[in-house]
Amino acid sequence: MTFAATILTLYPEMFPGPLRISLAGRALEEQKWSCDTIQIRDFATDKHRTVDDTPAGGGAGMVLKADVLGAAVDHAIARQPKTPILAMTPRGKPITQERIREIASGPGIILLCGRFEGFDERLFEARPEIEQVSLADVVLSGGEPAALAILDACIRLLPGVMGAASSGTEESFEDGLLEYPQYTRPQEWEGRTIPEVLRSGDHAKIAAWRKARAEDDTRLRRPDLWDRHGGDPVQPASGVQRDEQE
Amino acid sequence: MTFAATILTLYPEMFPGPLRISLAGRALEEQKWSCDTIQIRDFATDKHRTVDDTPAGGGAGMVLKADVLGAAVDHAIARQPKTPILAMTPRGKPITQERIREIASGPGIILLCGRFEGFDERLFEARPEIEQVSLADVVLSGGEPAALAILDACIRLLPGVMGAASSGTEESFEDGLLEYPQYTRPQEWEGRTIPEVLRSGDHAKIAAWRKARAEDDTRLRRPDLWDRHGGDPVQPASGVQRDEQE
Repeated sequence: MTFAATILTLYPEMFPGPLRISLAGRALEEQKWSCDTIQIRDFATDKHRTVDDTPAGGGAGMVLKADVLGAAVDHAIARQPKTPILAMTPRGKPITQERIREIASGPGIILLCGRFEGFDERLFEARPEIEQVSLADVVLSGGEPAALAILDACIRLLPGVMGAASSGTEESFEDGLLEYPQYTRPQEWEGRTIPEVLRSGDHAKIAAWRKARAEDDTRLRRPDLWDRHGGDPVQPASGVQRDEQE
Repeated sequence: MTFAATILTLYPEMFPGPLRISLAGRALEEQKWSCDTIQIRDFATDKHRTVDDTPAGGGAGMVLKADVLGAAVDHAIARQPKTPILAMTPRGKPITQERIREIASGPGIILLCGRFEGFDERLFEARPEIEQVSLADVVLSGGEPAALAILDACIRLLPGVMGAASSGTEESFEDGLLEYPQYTRPQEWEGRTIPEVLRSGDHAKIAAWRKARAEDDTRLRRPDLWDRHGGDPVQPASGVQRDEQE
């Protein structure tokens, strides 16, 4: 099954862009996902193809018009009625790896990208199926870089994209913790050696060390994640548990 | 002055990518910023140009080698010694608009993008000047989409890029709140009208309404931001205060 991505944008030439390359690019060639764009400007109704206007009440910048956005969104939804539709906006709910995983297990994604000062709010009142989503607590020149990142996060989780060896279940955020630190050869670099335990061959010890480091680093670096993790006893990932029983 | 962006990556062809277009693209043409890439693979030392190896202690995926990364990073730092260097990693500190604003006011940025299971941790022990930065609580196939978003966020703040009318100081995150909702013509759409107050012409009333909506929406949508905002009395932005004194 092909995961169908559709992007509503004023800059369709930005897609697939960097996703034409590397992991996402190979998956695109193998038709594991498809990439369609819809030009928002095509839904303007005047001869100047106007998509924006000045903010009601005054202020800098321009606001994308509800009538044009509504028509563009309706067109996208009619084509993919069972597909989640996400609008990229700093006013939205922060995207999570959990939501990415849900979306990646479905038929596709519709991404609405704004520019300028954002969307006429009535769009979201009239189309409550649109999820307002924020990628990060930074302001972008438009939704397109955020859409590319969200697409990339979905694509890597599609069946067969990473391969069986790398299921993506033992990494940052998947269990509410940061991932443990990684090391590889050379054994010594600039006088720094790989931690002894990782060379022990003792799977239980390695799993315990990694769990402790993931917890320590989360507590130290991301007190917000650690709080949400919530004092619950930390459950080792299933792979780690198997190792401990060996 | 040109803001000098350098990206350390295994996929230099991803840059400037979408930043060749629209606001960032025009700024690039006008030499308000420059975009250089450094191919990490050029710093491999064996004939196979190996950049990664299996994780010490076992596990899926591959880890980028400290010796190769160290040489690539040293090369970039030697070229731009006074420039912040950020590594894109989900183990990093979440990027903030405040940090973006600091970086945008400086000489440039060096962005280190990983792929696979990430970086050998000794890189960060040996080069403490590298900031480990996370864009969002999602896992990407590599640092490149995150680097594009961070670059975009910096570029729009460079002098002359948005123009004087849109200084970027009255928007989400700049005062610890989400931005208020926006509306524009048509006055009525699908039976929904623009809020009366925004058509009143009363600047003080409009400012008060926007402040109240920004606070309400932040409290409701982003309790985390609201908590950080900290129960302090909300200071109106200086522009709003002026309006109220009129």
